Amino acid sequence: MNHAILLISCPDSKGITAAVTQFIFQHNGNILHADQHIDDQTNTFFMRIEWSLAGFKIDRDKIARQFRTIAQRFTMTWELHFADKPLRVAIFVSKHLHCLYDLLYRKQAGHFTCTIPVIVSNHPEAKPIAQKFGIGFQAFPITKANKAAQETKQLELLHKKQVDLVILARYHQILSAKFINAFTHKIINIHHSFLPAFAGRGPYKQAYEKGVKIIGATSHYVTAELDSGPIIEQDTVRVSHRDTLNDLIRKGEDLEKIVLSRAMRWHLEYKILCYGNKTVIFD
Amino acid sequence: MNHAILLISCPDSKGITAAVTQFIFQHNGNILHADQHIDDQTNTFFMRIEWSLAGFKIDRDKIARQFRTIAQRFTMTWELHFADKPLRVAIFVSKHLHCLYDLLYRKQAGHFTCTIPVIVSNHPEAKPIAQKFGIGFQAFPITKANKAAQETKQLELLHKKQVDLVILARYHQILSAKFINAFTHKIINIHHSFLPAFAGRGPYKQAYEKGVKIIGATSHYVTAELDSGPIIEQDTVRVSHRDTLNDLIRKGEDLEKIVLSRAMRWHLEYKILCYGNKTVIFD
Amino acid sequence: MNHAILLISCPDSKGITAAVTQFIFQHNGNILHADQHIDDQTNTFFMRIEWSLAGFKIDRDKIARQFRTIAQRFTMTWELHFADKPLRVAIFVSKHLHCLYDLLYRKQAGHFTCTIPVIVSNHPEAKPIAQKFGIGFQAFPITKANKAAQETKQLELLHKKQVDLVILARYHQILSAKFINAFTHKIINIHHSFLPAFAGRGPYKQAYEKGVKIIGATSHYVTAELDSGPIIEQDTVRVSHRDTLNDLIRKGEDLEKIVLSRAMRWHLEYKILCYGNKTVIFD
Amino acid sequence: MNHAILLISCPDSKGITAAVTQFIFQHNGNILHADQHIDDQTNTFFMRIEWSLAGFKIDRDKIARQFRTIAQRFTMTWELHFADKPLRVAIFVSKHLHCLYDLLYRKQAGHFTCTIPVIVSNHPEAKPIAQKFGIGFQAFPITKANKAAQETKQLELLHKKQVDLVILARYHQILSAKFINAFTHKIINIHHSFLPAFAGRGPYKQAYEKGVKIIGATSHYVTAELDSGPIIEQDTVRVSHRDTLNDLIRKGEDLEKIVLSRAMRWHLEYKILCYGNKTVIFD
Repeated sequence: MNHAILLISCPDSKGITAAVTQFIFQHNGNILHADQHIDDQTNTFFMRIEWSLAGFKIDRDKIARQFRTIAQRFTMTWELHFADKPLRVAIFVSKHLHCLYDLLYRKQAGHFTCTIPVIVSNHPEAKPIAQKFGIGFQAFPITKANKAAQETKQLELLHKKQVDLVILARYHQILSAKFINAFTHKIINIHHSFLPAFAGRGPYKQAYEKGVKIIGATSHYVTAELDSGPIIEQDTVRVSHRDTLNDLIRKGEDLEKIVLSRAMRWHLEYKILCYGNKTVIFD
Repeated sequence: MNHAILLISCPDSKGITAAVTQFIFQHNGNILHADQHIDDQTNTFFMRIEWSLAGFKIDRDKIARQFRTIAQRFTMTWELHFADKPLRVAIFVSKHLHCLYDLLYRKQAGHFTCTIPVIVSNHPEAKPIAQKFGIGFQAFPITKANKAAQETKQLELLHKKQVDLVILARYHQILSAKFINAFTHKIINIHHSFLPAFAGRGPYKQAYEKGVKIIGATSHYVTAELDSGPIIEQDTVRVSHRDTLNDLIRKGEDLEKIVLSRAMRWHLEYKILCYGNKTVIFD
Repeated sequence: MNHAILLISCPDSKGITAAVTQFIFQHNGNILHADQHIDDQTNTFFMRIEWSLAGFKIDRDKIARQFRTIAQRFTMTWELHFADKPLRVAIFVSKHLHCLYDLLYRKQAGHFTCTIPVIVSNHPEAKPIAQKFGIGFQAFPITKANKAAQETKQLELLHKKQVDLVILARYHQILSAKFINAFTHKIINIHHSFLPAFAGRGPYKQAYEKGVKIIGATSHYVTAELDSGPIIEQDTVRVSHRDTLNDLIRKGEDLEKIVLSRAMRWHLEYKILCYGNKTVIFD
Repeated sequence: MNHAILLISCPDSKGITAAVTQFIFQHNGNILHADQHIDDQTNTFFMRIEWSLAGFKIDRDKIARQFRTIAQRFTMTWELHFADKPLRVAIFVSKHLHCLYDLLYRKQAGHFTCTIPVIVSNHPEAKPIAQKFGIGFQAFPITKANKAAQETKQLELLHKKQVDLVILARYHQILSAKFINAFTHKIINIHHSFLPAFAGRGPYKQAYEKGVKIIGATSHYVTAELDSGPIIEQDTVRVSHRDTLNDLIRKGEDLEKIVLSRAMRWHLEYKILCYGNKTVIFD
């Protein structure tokens, strides 16, 4: 897994792909995946390119420096990642533990390339699961009075653990702007509705009362506005008048698990680029 | 198709099904379909029962009178229909004609048991299609000034044509309360979004700008509140960052056709019961 | 959960529903769910009816005897169940443990009304999971030489544990006719393809090599003919040329879990009737 | 729409993308879409690249010649197309006309960039539809005795009309190897099942009798082996025990229309590459 990955966005112009692929080729890199997209409305170019470093003639700690010339020529916003340096993920949960359970199962089964140094919760219920899987658990009980202080401690913990990505796996606390800004486009939430329908509290109850014939789940990056950040993935399942509120919750759980795990995997594989309030998902 | 169909809703209590099925059995009716549902929240009983009138010992024009005793015992809201007396349907369109086209094709292919005496539009574009299919066409150009007067004429036309059901197949005019009240739960609209997301104007544009990963279509009965009546059917299709607004429109058209045609067919087969702002769809 | 459930199939004729619902009503039963279906091709009547025993005037151990008169009049095949007497389930696995894991999670989360007295495997890998969930585990290593003997021991175990339902959650051994006949329509298998496509070994590999654009999973009752018993549930997911065989396996796992858990839940709730090689699924 | 499109497949090696994009860039081309794929199993590289010819410094009739050097260096199989030169399509039908109807509607609505010079059938039923849409119609009644002769005439017609693509929109005749070889990977068939399940005659009947819970449709290129050519697209829809054979047929029609129209559109936009018996679908 000795691969380098470049994620690029910039104003579209002639020669970008030629320049990037030429850069890799002339230093003896072997392209494994390349995908690009042009947004016609904003004339923006997006690219994800992954190549093998076996035989690559630039040392990995010098690639960024050498690539900078090209990046500057095209005014690129860019990130360089290495596939063999897995991200460090913190999972936040409250009392609904199906997503946590599912993510830990998938981690164990090899679906995710990452390290999970800590599970964080405002409740103690997840502790036994964390222990079963041998992962550290830290409880931060939240009250109105202590919320800001607890968040500060959570941020300290995340920095101490060198966390790159925060997964809100049904964490039922609204994060402060300070917290969110410390992890821009690095916090993924699962919302148990087909956003933008049924944002906020009790989406299954809202859906039940509305009488919809399909329910959904949405994974998205967390931004300052509640349940409104860039959508990463959504999925839906059919319901009928026979389904009680509990049936909706049960059916929805399956969606939540799938939709959150896809978003997490794509982030870990550097397949997501944000632009405006949208995402490009490279496949 | 010499069938009778009873649609019943009433407070749940013991003996309802026994009484209804006994009524049919003792007069020598053969039940072909029976489906019931109990809404636990409101303790309401719903039933659809269809039986053959071959050999049934009550004349069809006396069935309602004789059933009334049972209906009163259980405080039923009920309707009696005969499958061989097809409903009369008016289709309203504006300039997007894919749904009209689709409904007429399905009518011709035998998917609908109904008569379509007239197609109504605020624009002339649908006229050639109406003619191709040999159906009467009536244009009612709408301006702010003439809207109320034109609606009155439309209602007169519908009454003259003895219309039982109005299908808004992308009719881009908001109907007045007067019109809607004249056809309570007898006007079906197709809205080109996954309601309650993206109600109102330009739902595909709204969806495109929001960056959703799935789009939908919703058929519903029209009520006084815009795009908020009882939902009959919904369906969804996956989209990606590669899809332009035009792609969303094109993909959505297929959904609209399917979702509207299902709603129309279920209504024509008396498979829909409204309660509160929801529907029971008997299958 | 003091409910009785009748599952009925018989030649269709007049008066069946009336007789059954009258039987419940005259003894003061309150019907909670009733669903029926008539297969036109074979003129067969199917019914599932569930009623509350609170206030029911026949003792539960005498219901069957009293119902027999009606059953005989209509030549019914029938089963009487009580919702408060949960079935006893044995889960068989081999080395792929995602379905086992998922079923145990769902059991713990309250999705299933059942008892799981034992997990059986031809390999030792599942033992730690069984222990985590506090369920007995029994390994029966299988070789060509010992297969018949081991099956005999497995059957003894199932009888000793009073097992009502066997779930093959990716159990990679073909059961003998003797075993299958001891549990007719009481063994549910998950096959990791959209049957009847890709029966037998290596369905994901078969699908990958065929280049299908959608893969599926199928839960079915086990019969003498491999992967050919009555289908209970199926679901599908989209794949593309970008998906490797491993991607198919990973995507398919989610399907398998969902499709198997639905089948198991429906069986436990007595919602499935077999006829010929098909199933009626009451909802 | 002054665009050029290159479709490339070749053994993977370093520098292919760099060479192709450099070729376009150095002659002042603006890349509009680029997508590539590497099949790990066979180590094959696939690419689709589309660029604007506005300002491109090579005359369009000389592009192929100049590109040949690069193509030879990498042992490419390649095609060069121009988006403003739409393909010429013949549609073949028998008596089921829903797909024909749908394709003609979509053509009229601007979903397809193509010319349809002729509709061919072994029956006369499609003639009125062809006339409604102002397209030539040619009937070739087929008997065992005249089949070979009629096919010869059909081929003559296709060559005379300069047909690039043949769409079998429910054409119920098996084509000869001679016919198929004259249009390798240029004949698209819609099969009304989820292939490889239910190949051959009567797939809906087969599905009904098998008791599947989901039905499908498959569009594929026609090869010598019946219903076994490279799959282009598939889709599925849920069915239940309540669905009669006619319901399956009706539900399936919607799938057929969507699945065939997607395949036709992708072919017309040069988005499909065949390799072995599979397809790469560039999006």
